[in-house]
Amino acid sequence: MLSSNDLITIAYLGNPGSFSHQALDKFCHNLFDGKRIETIGLSSFKALFDLLIKNKANYGVIALENSSIGSITTNYDLIWDNPLYIVSETFIAIRHHLIALAGANIDEITQVYSHPAALDQCQQLFHKHTHMQPIVHWDTSSAVKLVRETQNKSFAAIASDITCKGSDLVILQSNIEDYSANTTRFALISKNKIEIGKSDTKPYKLSIAVELKHEPGSLAKLLNKIAGTKANLTKIESRPIPETPWHYRFFIDFELNDKEQYAHILNAFEQTSISWKIIGLYQTLV
Amino acid sequence: MLSSNDLITIAYLGNPGSFSHQALDKFCHNLFDGKRIETIGLSSFKALFDLLIKNKANYGVIALENSSIGSITTNYDLIWDNPLYIVSETFIAIRHHLIALAGANIDEITQVYSHPAALDQCQQLFHKHTHMQPIVHWDTSSAVKLVRETQNKSFAAIASDITCKGSDLVILQSNIEDYSANTTRFALISKNKIEIGKSDTKPYKLSIAVELKHEPGSLAKLLNKIAGTKANLTKIESRPIPETPWHYRFFIDFELNDKEQYAHILNAFEQTSISWKIIGLYQTLV
Repeated sequence: MLSSNDLITIAYLGNPGSFSHQALDKFCHNLFDGKRIETIGLSSFKALFDLLIKNKANYGVIALENSSIGSITTNYDLIWDNPLYIVSETFIAIRHHLIALAGANIDEITQVYSHPAALDQCQQLFHKHTHMQPIVHWDTSSAVKLVRETQNKSFAAIASDITCKGSDLVILQSNIEDYSANTTRFALISKNKIEIGKSDTKPYKLSIAVELKHEPGSLAKLLNKIAGTKANLTKIESRPIPETPWHYRFFIDFELNDKEQYAHILNAFEQTSISWKIIGLYQTLV
Repeated sequence: MLSSNDLITIAYLGNPGSFSHQALDKFCHNLFDGKRIETIGLSSFKALFDLLIKNKANYGVIALENSSIGSITTNYDLIWDNPLYIVSETFIAIRHHLIALAGANIDEITQVYSHPAALDQCQQLFHKHTHMQPIVHWDTSSAVKLVRETQNKSFAAIASDITCKGSDLVILQSNIEDYSANTTRFALISKNKIEIGKSDTKPYKLSIAVELKHEPGSLAKLLNKIAGTKANLTKIESRPIPETPWHYRFFIDFELNDKEQYAHILNAFEQTSISWKIIGLYQTLV
């Protein structure tokens, strides 16, 4: 248990202004209000997982999936490989903006830097402006920094509007995401998993990863047992098992209504799988 | 129907020497032997789909999934959005090599260019050689071309060994893929779908995309009906429906034994889904 004076170290991707940092802010306000917080911005999710494993951070903020482009599969693979657990989740609306130096002209932008997920979420921009070349950068807020440092008026970045506030940068075009409902689901992860509290009234979410027997109908059998528990399956993601080509591991999320349902679900996995792992039991921050 | 003199135009990703081109070669030798073939190398899968839709190519070669890193999700989304069908599939063993100018020293390589999927498949290289920075390029064979053109001995590319044959380039390290079983599944796509032939003895594969009713247990219901047909479900992939956050479309592959099974499967989809689409009925080239 943390005492009120303990310093809580939280790792995230990018720099202040990144979408991961916005999720971090939301987790802090809701879960660690009044605590001493130290944050560490990193350049890859692999580095973030390593830091938690080495006990150099208490928590990490990771992107799990985006409503337009799908799962951040790296993080599914990393959470299978490491003894870390989801302890909370939240959703952040992702509004992208085309950011450049003051005086830049949208018709003269040739290179647009951003995180690959952000570039993927703004494909219409590149279809419309064929003179713009998307260039992958490791983080959205750092892409803005790069544009500022080069002082090149033919460069732009795709990032949150927070990243250019109070600077010599301007927004050339707002809300350039392909889908206005564009939202990313973030998880807070930790070495310590949580248990269902006795007095909790809010529903829990449960994430489980599983490797099934290699026989026809094995997934149907598992899902059928789960359907019998009346738990709502909210997501299923398949990931390859690299050592065994064309065999898959499944990551399944549920909304739980009570403790009994939890026991029934674990029982369904126990009966139908080769191996399985609880990835997290957690509540959603709204 | 194509007559024997018709020119067949096939689009693929990259340049000769790319893994897509190796898949193209295999499709040509097996399916279009003795025909007049024209090939078009493109820089994105989006461009490839556009070409087929505009009738500027008869076929396209696309990567569907890799045994180490998973699905090429862009192509799943593109095949849902476009009236194109899988007409054949094949598997290519992917051996990656670190390629640089003659005289280059592995300890002095600072920048390594390749397709993002290739970089993902060789992560151990970057963990071991922390002086190397992975840099995303649109194609493996073009990354080799870039290294040759710059004449910079601190640059390297990750690509097939075909790309450096008969040139001033050398392989600094062979077989750098993380998993020795590393294999990519490629599909041949076309505007015209195929039907089960009367005299065919080889089993067919069937790929179907589906949007299910938003109610608990809907996926279990579908998979259960399918399990009843005894068809072997070989893969299930979920992709987001961008307009409706946190709802998913599923892409399901089956191995079919006979025509009757085919009818039963279509019936299962008809009964349980909001909308569904046959993505392809095809045989595997071995």
